[in-house]
This record gives sequence, structure tokens and C-alpha cells, in this order.
Amino acid sequence: MKFVTFGTPAAPRLGALDAERGVLDLKKANRKLPGDMYALIEGGASAMKAVKATFAAARKKKGGPWTPLRRAKLLAPFPSPRKNVFCVGRNYKLHIEEGARARGVEPTFPKVPEFFSKPRTTVIGPEAGVLRHEKNTQNLDYEVELAIVIGKKVRDLPPEKAMSAVFGYTIVNDVTARDAQRAHGQWHKGKSFDTFCPMGPCVVTADEFGDPSGHRIALKVNGEIRQDSNTADLLFDVPAMVSWLCAGLTLEPGDIIATGTPSGVAMGMTPQKWLQVGDVIEAEVEGIGVLRNRVVKG
Amino acid sequence: MKFVTFGTPAAPRLGALDAERGVLDLKKANRKLPGDMYALIEGGASAMKAVKATFAAARKKKGGPWTPLRRAKLLAPFPSPRKNVFCVGRNYKLHIEEGARARGVEPTFPKVPEFFSKPRTTVIGPEAGVLRHEKNTQNLDYEVELAIVIGKKVRDLPPEKAMSAVFGYTIVNDVTARDAQRAHGQWHKGKSFDTFCPMGPCVVTADEFGDPSGHRIALKVNGEIRQDSNTADLLFDVPAMVSWLCAGLTLEPGDIIATGTPSGVAMGMTPQKWLQVGDVIEAEVEGIGVLRNRVVKG
Repeated sequence: MKFVTFGTPAAPRLGALDAERGVLDLKKANRKLPGDMYALIEGGASAMKAVKATFAAARKKKGGPWTPLRRAKLLAPFPSPRKNVFCVGRNYKLHIEEGARARGVEPTFPKVPEFFSKPRTTVIGPEAGVLRHEKNTQNLDYEVELAIVIGKKVRDLPPEKAMSAVFGYTIVNDVTARDAQRAHGQWHKGKSFDTFCPMGPCVVTADEFGDPSGHRIALKVNGEIRQDSNTADLLFDVPAMVSWLCAGLTLEPGDIIATGTPSGVAMGMTPQKWLQVGDVIEAEVEGIGVLRNRVVKG
Repeated sequence: MKFVTFGTPAAPRLGALDAERGVLDLKKANRKLPGDMYALIEGGASAMKAVKATFAAARKKKGGPWTPLRRAKLLAPFPSPRKNVFCVGRNYKLHIEEGARARGVEPTFPKVPEFFSKPRTTVIGPEAGVLRHEKNTQNLDYEVELAIVIGKKVRDLPPEKAMSAVFGYTIVNDVTARDAQRAHGQWHKGKSFDTFCPMGPCVVTADEFGDPSGHRIALKVNGEIRQDSNTADLLFDVPAMVSWLCAGLTLEPGDIIATGTPSGVAMGMTPQKWLQVGDVIEAEVEGIGVLRNRVVKG
């Protein structure tokens, strides 16, 4: 299934997506159902069973609390995450090579995943504006990423058990101020300006998404394809990343892990085509959808 | 004033500290008062005025909802922070030099603060156990730090206005797995194992703490002084750190910024005295108190 958060930031609603009918407001369809993404995930198998039953029944009925997708105002699936979004850096071979080339150094490849984080103040939804931050960066860049949504409280899972912790997937655009990323040594600051984490458009459950390897991952700016790769090219695959991250560290339901970006970022281009006010960014992962945002003044 | 969070993790209470009488349960003293640290901070000047009036009256009365300090079960001031704890690395000259020496390289000094973060699953209170994590690290280390508590929603503040955003201060022990810190490139993972952020014992308001420069900062392991410095030695002082962090990034009430540690960590010793099960760590900042934790198996 595909789930969305929609409505107004002050009163977000949990919805389920149907290709034909649009967004079903789950709590309006059945007031016993979960009201947000955390409640859905924490509700486990019994909540999901109830959701599926209500969804199946609502699809057959005329009327009901449906909103056509183009009229639904989508928010980030987690409009204000309970902890920072976990992120993995340097996880596609060609992106590591373009980054090293831009800095004039030899590429080195990580032996274990490199983690950092983005605070909740970075999170925005589909169609929301990415601030240009002209006072604080001259090197605004994009990074399309497959993001894992954790389904259970887990710690110290071996890779062969790690998939049991995955609830589903969404898309994150790991927007980055390259100059700040470099200047501050650690990447946290250059990755954490307000609006630097567009997320969505939906969460796809693990069963519907299938094997997380083998999905096309791509990004366009103003219609021009900049990134075009496949999750099969991840250096650390989904089970490896979850396993590395939860070593000694408890993951909780609703935790989000952005898994790194393929090559094609502005930093790696000659000349470097940094994002500018008015640019439209479309981040796409096969099986999830397109996350579209425009760069705005501010 | 000094504020504490106390009671059980499932039902934490907000208290105000008096040197003689102990902890006053604020909501029991006056049910209109804030019930947790976030509510206190978000309540602003009017909440603080009401708290001060109730506190002053309660000190004069016999009886009332007081608990002697040694019988109060203190929790972290923010038992489950709403976003990761912001941290600053490499912010004392001698600590940078000991770190470089341990890695056999020349010291370099940051021109801007280096930020990283610790998720809420790292946070524990006074007297709680720091897990040894024997499966995941052989190099368990301590770092006493002055931590800033943010009082207002702010962005893009120059240093000369940054102090207006500070609500108060607490102590953080930035416990670190040095091997994981180094292996994962970015510091996030080696700083983020469960229990790696002891916090407390209280939050001291900015007016009571006074100038944040000039406070002794020290740490003992089993009574032996390991770190002994002064916040006057910070490379980036409190206004500079707040100003750098909030450039392009909205800080919110209750955000916590751990400001870096002075020299004397286990990594810098010869031989390196890594933390072991049973070790008692006492982290102290003059004007706040002592944050005491024991290393436990697990």
C-alpha cells in the first residue's frame, strides 16, 4: 500500500492512496484507524489489517472521504519527525568519484557507512519551496535518495534479519549547501539549513515496494535529467545499512534513513550548475513516485 | 533558578531546586504552572514570573510538595528531546592537540564550529548506567561539556544578539566510542550508541549562571581528575556557537547544544584509560553541579 500525510500543517491527516480514486482519509473512513504515520507504524499488523479492510471496502463504495490526488495537499509523510533524519553519505561509487574530482583528490571508498543527520526543521513536503539561502550559501545542491522507514524498535540486528525492521520507503532530497558542508568539517551543518529535506510524496510499504535493490533513482532540474542510476548500485545495500546503523543504537518505529545519492549532483558538473531561485527539482524513485519542489527566494 | 526533571520515566515531573528544601514539584504547588521543561521554556516571561512567585511562597511555607534532593529521582532535564542534541566538536585548543597526537598527525584548528548530533535514544539522566557496549567498542571515552538550552525560536542571529536566545545551561557527557567515531568517517555513529548522552543534573537559567565564560569544567573517573579546564578556553564562545548554528537553521525552544570538551579524555592518555564496567564518571561545571553516572555491562 501507499500512505500519505495530507491537509494543513496544523491539522495533518493520514491517507491511503488509490491510483483511480485518490486519497482516502483513513480516520474519516473509520474513526478507529490510526491518525498519523507514527500511529500506523506503531499499530503493527493489527492496525494494518484494519486499514486494509477499510480501504478495500471504501474502494468499492460510491462516495466516501476520498480526495482526488491532484486536489489533495500533500505534506511530508512525517511533517515533524521525532528525531533527526538519519542519513548515509557516499554510498554510490560514481558519486564518490565525482566528489573527489571536484575537490581535486583521489577517491577513497568507505569500508562502513558514513552517517550524519538532518533536524526536523529541514523537513518539507511535496511542492513546498526549498529556500535559496542566498546569505548562507553560494553552492546549493540536490541529492535524490531512497529513504527507509523503520517499522519496529530494534538494536544489533545482523544484515540477514535487518529487513524485518523495515516498514517501507519514501524519497528524500538531501539538499546540501556544499560550501557550508566543507567549511564546517562535519557535514551536519551544510545539510541542515531550513527546508533542506524535502520528503515524500508517499510511504510505500515494504511488501509493495519489493526488493529495494533494482529500482531506478533519478532527478531532474527544470526537466533536464541530472541524476539517473539504480539502487542496485548502492555500495551498502538496505540490509547492510540498517544493520550497521542499529549496532549499539536503538532504532524506533518511524525512524527515517536516507541512503545516499548517485552521481550527477551540481558539484560534480563542469561548470557546476548550482540551484537557483525558480529551479524545479523532481526527485524520483521507481515504485514510489516523484517528489517535486521549487527553489524559492529566502 | 535551577530546574530539574524528576520522578519516573513514564511520569516525569518538573521541579525547581532550593538548596535547603530540595525539589519543589511545580505542578503540585500550583496546577497552572508548566509541567515539563519544554512548557516552561515556551511559556516565556509570564510562565517564569508565575513559577518564581509560587517558588518564593512555597519556600516560606511549612510543608508543601517538596522532596529532599537526595531522595528525588532525577531524570535528564529533557528525557526524550524533540530533536537530536546538537554538538560541537574540537572546541578547546588542548583537546585538539591531544586528539591529533593520538592519531599521529599535526593539529589543525577549525575556523568555524564543527557540528554533529546525538539522537534522543542516547539521553540518560543522573545516576543512570552508561552501557559498556563491549560488542561494539573497545574504546569507550568520556567528554564533559557545557550545554546550552535554547529559549526562543531564532534564525540568523549575529553573535551580539545570540545571548537573547539562551534560556539556560546544563551538563552533557558526550560519551564516545572512539573506534566507531573514526571508522565511520562522520562522527555521528560513534557518538550515538544508546546511553551516550548523560544529561543533567539540572538546567540553570541564564541569569543565574551569568557570563558562560569563566566557569570551571572538570571530569573525574573513580575520583581521579581527568579533565580540568575552564569555559574561558572555548575556541568558539557561546554567542559565536549559537550564531554559527542558527545561520540558515531555525533553533527552537528546548534545543540543546553541547559545546565541546576540554583535554584529558582517555584517547589522549598514555596509556589510554578507556572506560570499563564499574567506572564512576563525575562531570562537573561550576554553577550547574555534578552529573554522575556509572558504566554498566551491556
